[in-house]
Amino acid sequence: MSVLTLLTDFGTQDGFVGVMKGVIWGICPTVQIADISHQIQPQNLIQGAITLSRVAPFFGDGTIHVAVVDPGVGTHRRAIAAQLGTQLYVAPDNGLLTLLIQDAEEKQLPLKFVELNKREYWLNQVTSTFHGRDIFAPVGAHLAASVPLKNLGKPIDDPILLPFSKPEKTDSGWNAHISLIDTFGNLRTDLHTDRIKGEAKVNILGQEIDSISKSYGHHEVGDLVALKDSEGYLEIAVVNGNAEKRVDAKVGDLVEVVISPSS
Amino acid sequence: MSVLTLLTDFGTQDGFVGVMKGVIWGICPTVQIADISHQIQPQNLIQGAITLSRVAPFFGDGTIHVAVVDPGVGTHRRAIAAQLGTQLYVAPDNGLLTLLIQDAEEKQLPLKFVELNKREYWLNQVTSTFHGRDIFAPVGAHLAASVPLKNLGKPIDDPILLPFSKPEKTDSGWNAHISLIDTFGNLRTDLHTDRIKGEAKVNILGQEIDSISKSYGHHEVGDLVALKDSEGYLEIAVVNGNAEKRVDAKVGDLVEVVISPSS
Amino acid sequence: MSVLTLLTDFGTQDGFVGVMKGVIWGICPTVQIADISHQIQPQNLIQGAITLSRVAPFFGDGTIHVAVVDPGVGTHRRAIAAQLGTQLYVAPDNGLLTLLIQDAEEKQLPLKFVELNKREYWLNQVTSTFHGRDIFAPVGAHLAASVPLKNLGKPIDDPILLPFSKPEKTDSGWNAHISLIDTFGNLRTDLHTDRIKGEAKVNILGQEIDSISKSYGHHEVGDLVALKDSEGYLEIAVVNGNAEKRVDAKVGDLVEVVISPSS
Repeated sequence: MSVLTLLTDFGTQDGFVGVMKGVIWGICPTVQIADISHQIQPQNLIQGAITLSRVAPFFGDGTIHVAVVDPGVGTHRRAIAAQLGTQLYVAPDNGLLTLLIQDAEEKQLPLKFVELNKREYWLNQVTSTFHGRDIFAPVGAHLAASVPLKNLGKPIDDPILLPFSKPEKTDSGWNAHISLIDTFGNLRTDLHTDRIKGEAKVNILGQEIDSISKSYGHHEVGDLVALKDSEGYLEIAVVNGNAEKRVDAKVGDLVEVVISPSS
Repeated sequence: MSVLTLLTDFGTQDGFVGVMKGVIWGICPTVQIADISHQIQPQNLIQGAITLSRVAPFFGDGTIHVAVVDPGVGTHRRAIAAQLGTQLYVAPDNGLLTLLIQDAEEKQLPLKFVELNKREYWLNQVTSTFHGRDIFAPVGAHLAASVPLKNLGKPIDDPILLPFSKPEKTDSGWNAHISLIDTFGNLRTDLHTDRIKGEAKVNILGQEIDSISKSYGHHEVGDLVALKDSEGYLEIAVVNGNAEKRVDAKVGDLVEVVISPSS
Repeated sequence: MSVLTLLTDFGTQDGFVGVMKGVIWGICPTVQIADISHQIQPQNLIQGAITLSRVAPFFGDGTIHVAVVDPGVGTHRRAIAAQLGTQLYVAPDNGLLTLLIQDAEEKQLPLKFVELNKREYWLNQVTSTFHGRDIFAPVGAHLAASVPLKNLGKPIDDPILLPFSKPEKTDSGWNAHISLIDTFGNLRTDLHTDRIKGEAKVNILGQEIDSISKSYGHHEVGDLVALKDSEGYLEIAVVNGNAEKRVDAKVGDLVEVVISPSS
């Protein structure tokens, strides 16, 4: 029994996601479908890519991820399917898979890409506005039904990659950046805490945080804290509150990490 | 393995939808459940009817659709189940199925209706405020478990129909109307693009759009465009933006389509 | 085929719930997962406890409920699993299960609790910020895969209970309190209507309601009404409107019920 995930910017009001499930179960009735998010901000590829890269590693081998944030729908942008390590992906070729591709390259895992061009695995009628339903959902369902990746299109090796901010080494530590702001107003940065060796202070938008904490729970309600998030990245948060509002943060803002080497 | 869909105006905060799934799986543990929408505006039958009619055709034969937008719950309004073509429906008798019934009639597909009155297919205790849980969910689950439609109630042939706006033919084209506004602020009209033979201009609330486009992607960000939506209807949108806000639109507003016959 | 429910305050934007499903299906691929709510207000244990206690009784025997509203994540608060009657629960030990425990005690149903301490049933790496993914989801999945409760931790008998408001008997009836406000602005009180013997008037924030109605449908649009909600509790609502806004209500506000004994 295979698992397929959906990540889109469609929202949940209009039935677009429901109809993708109808198409998927019409092709592969036994697949379990997990919604990752349908509240990606409209056409925000960066948010989509980060969200997908955070959750995919916790799914099992053979999981199929169908990701549709697709500002170029109806143009000549390619549609792709990919194997990255032990999981499969279906998405428009616009950089949504960037972080997962880079991670698989770093770990020297298997990477295969095809440009989707086998119409027999799509719905009969393909509109120019809803490839999520007409192409991506049915292709994902055929993968779930054990159609091999190579049958779905022609091999390519040049998927589009997006430029993501990276933390910069400084004399005293790192210049990190806010990469994503979550529902609670927590600020995720692009700096993995593995890179912080020793005690650290954090400066963000004029506020200083004097150490990196182990959890929210060791502080008072209302404290501005820095901590390791659930994927290992440095996060800025307010205990039982909203850090985005507290420091008036936005994606891309600088987060300065000053390290005192462990003594 | 059958598929059952849920469409309600219950929202997803309070657990009302979750409890319907508990009831359904208690009766038919293997059915796959697809949420169509639980963000129908409270008691907006028109929005519920349009949303359901858009998504149902993409589900497979034998799918059971349970739709609960129910301003009359607890009064003497009837509860019904229906076969329309190859799919099954369970809903209050208040017009939610109007467009699907009209479509089935037009295509001369099988239509059968029963008024639900067999309490052995309901929960033991039926409240006067939550028939979604007490009547509609269990009836849908029994259909999924292969109970025949005719066992669930007594045949009727007069389901309630709602009046929907229809486009009007003019000397120069059509007077269409905004029938639904989606999450992105896209404006769906009641005019199917099959009826537009030739080149067309569109006038909406003082703005002119000089042609009907193939997709969002062929325009600049911020352009107001007219195009064929994913179900074939004329739609007004702003590329990567919000047409509802741009032209200050509301449901029912006039959309004038002026056609120059193809030369 | 077992059923597992999820109730959290994680929202649905960031993928946290999706990843819990990935973990669960990785361990128990056949379990059906019902989302109860992921829109519990952040760290609102009272709302979480009430919502869970309303929906659990409508699920079947053997259902596993995983509830994560967890302000103390990463501190020394315990994580627990419980059998209450015929259902199973996994949650932080912070009072989320209070109402269900009290109900099971009242009905003299079986109650068993374990403090989770068997790491072989958790993810390999346990973070200090996301026990929903690392502990609660995998433990729930192992229960779904028929691991006995006693294998998951050591027996305890002192789960934390939260203080909930209770209605107070008065000379003329009851002083009830608003316990929860739902998405529609309906005001749920802590008074079960079984306790109202006879005709009753209701006073709330300066407004008088002169009887308790059978349903919304017997009134005019805009009427402020008192009625029995779908779980039997006294509820204040506005027909096709929002009672929270109408009377400017908040949780804890007094709702006075004045009873004239049936004649």
